[in-house]
Amino acid sequence: MNDVAIIGTGQTKFSKEEADIEKLLFESANNCIKSISNCSVKDIDGVLVSTNNNSKYMSAILSELLDIKPRIAHSIEHLCSSGTNAIISAYSYISSGLADIVLVSGVDSATNPGQILEWDRSRGNLEHPIYWASMLTKAHKRKFQTSEEELAIVSAKNHKHAMNNPHAYSNEPKTISEIMNSKQITDDLRIMDCSRSCSGSSSVILTSEKFAKKFSDNPIWISGIGQKTTSASFTKNNINEIQSTQIAANSAYKMAHILPNDIDVAEVHDAFSVCELMAISELGITSGENSGEFVRNLFNTEDKMVNPRGGLIGAGHPLGATGVSQVIEITNQLQGKSNKRQIDNARIGLIHNMSAAGTSSSVMVMKN
Amino acid sequence: MNDVAIIGTGQTKFSKEEADIEKLLFESANNCIKSISNCSVKDIDGVLVSTNNNSKYMSAILSELLDIKPRIAHSIEHLCSSGTNAIISAYSYISSGLADIVLVSGVDSATNPGQILEWDRSRGNLEHPIYWASMLTKAHKRKFQTSEEELAIVSAKNHKHAMNNPHAYSNEPKTISEIMNSKQITDDLRIMDCSRSCSGSSSVILTSEKFAKKFSDNPIWISGIGQKTTSASFTKNNINEIQSTQIAANSAYKMAHILPNDIDVAEVHDAFSVCELMAISELGITSGENSGEFVRNLFNTEDKMVNPRGGLIGAGHPLGATGVSQVIEITNQLQGKSNKRQIDNARIGLIHNMSAAGTSSSVMVMKN
Repeated sequence: MNDVAIIGTGQTKFSKEEADIEKLLFESANNCIKSISNCSVKDIDGVLVSTNNNSKYMSAILSELLDIKPRIAHSIEHLCSSGTNAIISAYSYISSGLADIVLVSGVDSATNPGQILEWDRSRGNLEHPIYWASMLTKAHKRKFQTSEEELAIVSAKNHKHAMNNPHAYSNEPKTISEIMNSKQITDDLRIMDCSRSCSGSSSVILTSEKFAKKFSDNPIWISGIGQKTTSASFTKNNINEIQSTQIAANSAYKMAHILPNDIDVAEVHDAFSVCELMAISELGITSGENSGEFVRNLFNTEDKMVNPRGGLIGAGHPLGATGVSQVIEITNQLQGKSNKRQIDNARIGLIHNMSAAGTSSSVMVMKN
Repeated sequence: MNDVAIIGTGQTKFSKEEADIEKLLFESANNCIKSISNCSVKDIDGVLVSTNNNSKYMSAILSELLDIKPRIAHSIEHLCSSGTNAIISAYSYISSGLADIVLVSGVDSATNPGQILEWDRSRGNLEHPIYWASMLTKAHKRKFQTSEEELAIVSAKNHKHAMNNPHAYSNEPKTISEIMNSKQITDDLRIMDCSRSCSGSSSVILTSEKFAKKFSDNPIWISGIGQKTTSASFTKNNINEIQSTQIAANSAYKMAHILPNDIDVAEVHDAFSVCELMAISELGITSGENSGEFVRNLFNTEDKMVNPRGGLIGAGHPLGATGVSQVIEITNQLQGKSNKRQIDNARIGLIHNMSAAGTSSSVMVMKN
């Protein structure tokens, strides 16, 4: 079985403007190919597009735009975790020998159709994600006495981190007080607790050990993968936990031979502020009852360990691109190329990407 | 690297009635699981859905309906070859060790959105597939003096084969004369030269050598895989050939260590009658100039070697399900379970599935 590494990355700016997804895909993919000095489009034999967009045949369209004639080419969709699903699929194509060098490009536009899951009528007409997020928030408050301020700190921290990310949707700092006084959407959630759907694209190129050495002097290795889908409907789940994340994390840690406290830097899926608190405990980085305090401490000490690029709340959430952009951040951190966001001596990085109220999760461990 | 086999198959009837894709998926997947006597849903750790439908999160929805909690779960789309793309993706997950037992379910409904490729405005407003098919037909007539009767024989043969397929869309024989006198759509194509978009679902279960022996006394092995996407737009292609099929076939034959004349039974992508003539020559089963005569001879001798289930013309074309149903036919043929359609002593089978005027092709070789 072939080991698999990330050897190139490329992005667009994340923006609230509605945009043509073909243009976004081309921009991030082209930036990605140019990030590898000696890579030609002729070397690429796989092109996977991760998106919630309803357009068809997007990997063939992107290939045509880039003049790639791939062996492997198709689109992948699994709502908000489409991006990590596409990267893990690329891993499997390379590992199994069906492809050598695979471009994965994630994209969505601001008005993408993946924001509401029509199937999940378990909440009656309360189908927008904010309603499950509100229920998770209420449950977290009840179980752990989580305060409004602790929730606001997640958002303040991630907005602050996004200031150092030139591709982020948000480039304005938000104070805890501003967040706590922002528009109230439900009993337990304010507008600044929420990530924003936006337009954007992110691309990575993956390859096997054989080619990684040819194309990169600093490949970043995918050493652990865990995935789990527990259901599609929110009401099938216990609102006090994200079981899919627990299971996926355990698989990824086992495969990578690491423990949670080995992690130097983590991208976690903060679709809403409560999701970051739940994720870091399900991932074993801290406990549920200490999660609020853990994030407060990160914020107060300016420790960028969790969501250094600004998370979904700060960087924006172009659904199909999100998981790919998380992998780019960890790749760049482990390469020591994160500029103002750089975490010193980052050796082991984690990606946590999930869909639909945590009914499914992908967890990846990467090493340099 | 793990070898990969098909150990279970299940289908719905293909029909012109508009249908709920969740119900279709459940029906074919449930039939598939029941086809393996000792398989429990707990054994399945991958669920891939192949579809052009715009609904999201379909693999999670299907998993919930079946009470499967998979590791690997996502949708795959690549227009008409989505089905073989999903099966080859499942192969890569199993081969790489990320999953052990994967359910692949293809589905589309009669009014699915994959019939028109919005991107391909290269033909002006003549965007319906019948226009490229018409151009390919004209080119084939000019180059090989292909007759109207030879084209009609493809359709007559496949309608005849479909009579023995209880899942087929068409269960009525069509005479050569009826076909040649059916409604004329373009200069070179009549309505009975065309496959019909329809509702239907097909499912297979794949696994590794380790589990194949546990669950089946007759697993069918995927021994060759070839894929190629040359473009998205039709006008990028030479209308005298299907280059993606040539390249994909050569890769698949090389991987399977076979030559075209080793093939006992073939499912080829007869979206239109001319496609079968072109496919059998690009696949090396016959030459371009002999393709009309080759099919005439099959028809006259009642040889079911090509498209025994009736092809897309006879069985119908529910886009995301088509490639999966082709793999089911070859599996059943190699297991000797094809009843009236059975080809004697079938040992090596071929699947040819393509998208968008042959701008991409998948070719698979299977052995028993």
